[in-house]
Amino acid sequence: MAEEKPYLTGRTYLFRLPKGKDLVESLADFCHDNQVKCGIISVVGCVASVTLGYYDQAKKRYEKTVINKPLELLHLTGNISIQDNRPMIHAHVTLADEEYNVTGGHLLPGTKIHVCEAYVQELVGEPKVRRTDKVTKLALWG
Amino acid sequence: MAEEKPYLTGRTYLFRLPKGKDLVESLADFCHDNQVKCGIISVVGCVASVTLGYYDQAKKRYEKTVINKPLELLHLTGNISIQDNRPMIHAHVTLADEEYNVTGGHLLPGTKIHVCEAYVQELVGEPKVRRTDKVTKLALWG
Amino acid sequence: MAEEKPYLTGRTYLFRLPKGKDLVESLADFCHDNQVKCGIISVVGCVASVTLGYYDQAKKRYEKTVINKPLELLHLTGNISIQDNRPMIHAHVTLADEEYNVTGGHLLPGTKIHVCEAYVQELVGEPKVRRTDKVTKLALWG
Repeated sequence: MAEEKPYLTGRTYLFRLPKGKDLVESLADFCHDNQVKCGIISVVGCVASVTLGYYDQAKKRYEKTVINKPLELLHLTGNISIQDNRPMIHAHVTLADEEYNVTGGHLLPGTKIHVCEAYVQELVGEPKVRRTDKVTKLALWG
Repeated sequence: MAEEKPYLTGRTYLFRLPKGKDLVESLADFCHDNQVKCGIISVVGCVASVTLGYYDQAKKRYEKTVINKPLELLHLTGNISIQDNRPMIHAHVTLADEEYNVTGGHLLPGTKIHVCEAYVQELVGEPKVRRTDKVTKLALWG
Repeated sequence: MAEEKPYLTGRTYLFRLPKGKDLVESLADFCHDNQVKCGIISVVGCVASVTLGYYDQAKKRYEKTVINKPLELLHLTGNISIQDNRPMIHAHVTLADEEYNVTGGHLLPGTKIHVCEAYVQELVGEPKVRRTDKVTKLALWG
């Protein structure tokens, strides 16, 4: 593995996300507004609906599903880096329904916040930048 | 979104929780004893039993279930803030059974620690305070 | 609970893991190469296969299963401490298949990285050391 340069921990946020808004877009807007270009992110709460992706490693594209019902957001975990000159959130989620069954995937736009509590840890240093990778067709860090 | 004031990272703990005790109460006691009023928390391990909640967004109350068997605690993630002048843990958990099936929900008292390793990151600044929200009937940050 | 001494946060890393390599071994190698002896770890991405453990609390040993198909790695969460004079990764994972069903367990060697993005937070202080516990037969912090 190439030698990695460590980051410094920057600003740390703990806050509630706006009810009724889109989850991943709200997080990206927060990072854009506060100029958080690199970092990690964690959320717990509940959502009114969710849109999940599954990356098909053979077809090299995301499949997508929409679940239109209230779910406990057990965990959103992800990172913040730069794509097209803007903070981009790469996040995965796990969710539970009223039977305590768990579903999850790559978080896509189309996920409606009910009550969500977010933690953002900024990392200070050279921000990671995402560019399309020829092999996987994903936007990866160089 | 209202402008958020960042926190400073305070004390950081990595430790084992006491076998046989209640998971959420042990975490709250730890925070109380060490005067951690705001922060984030993460645990991995295994439990002898678990009590889960599901917040019914229409009925505005938690449903509850008890699972009385040994489970791998895949992840507890949550935050620490103040409710009724005491550190309160808001945590969600995912767990796996012997078939590697995953269940999860909002962590409630009635969860017995077998072996659990906890990480606590204190956040220094104005602690979040939970008060009953009229719309959701949940105890939310103001 | 015994009084816990806090750690200082040390170096922080955000990086991509090497495609095709073993997940837990790559993380341990990274920590060894960078002399990260204590800390926490979080990964999101996707894997080509996974090997999971379930700790049987009655039999006091791990059961094991191998899932030989591409899965979304919803979350790896864990910690870094010392075992046999080397950084040891204790990590749990949750994963989703193409139907967004979630499985998970204790991460074992035999898990192939496809694309994985890792976060490592070093903790500075007395590193935790794992030694075999007589009661559980697990390697636990003293």
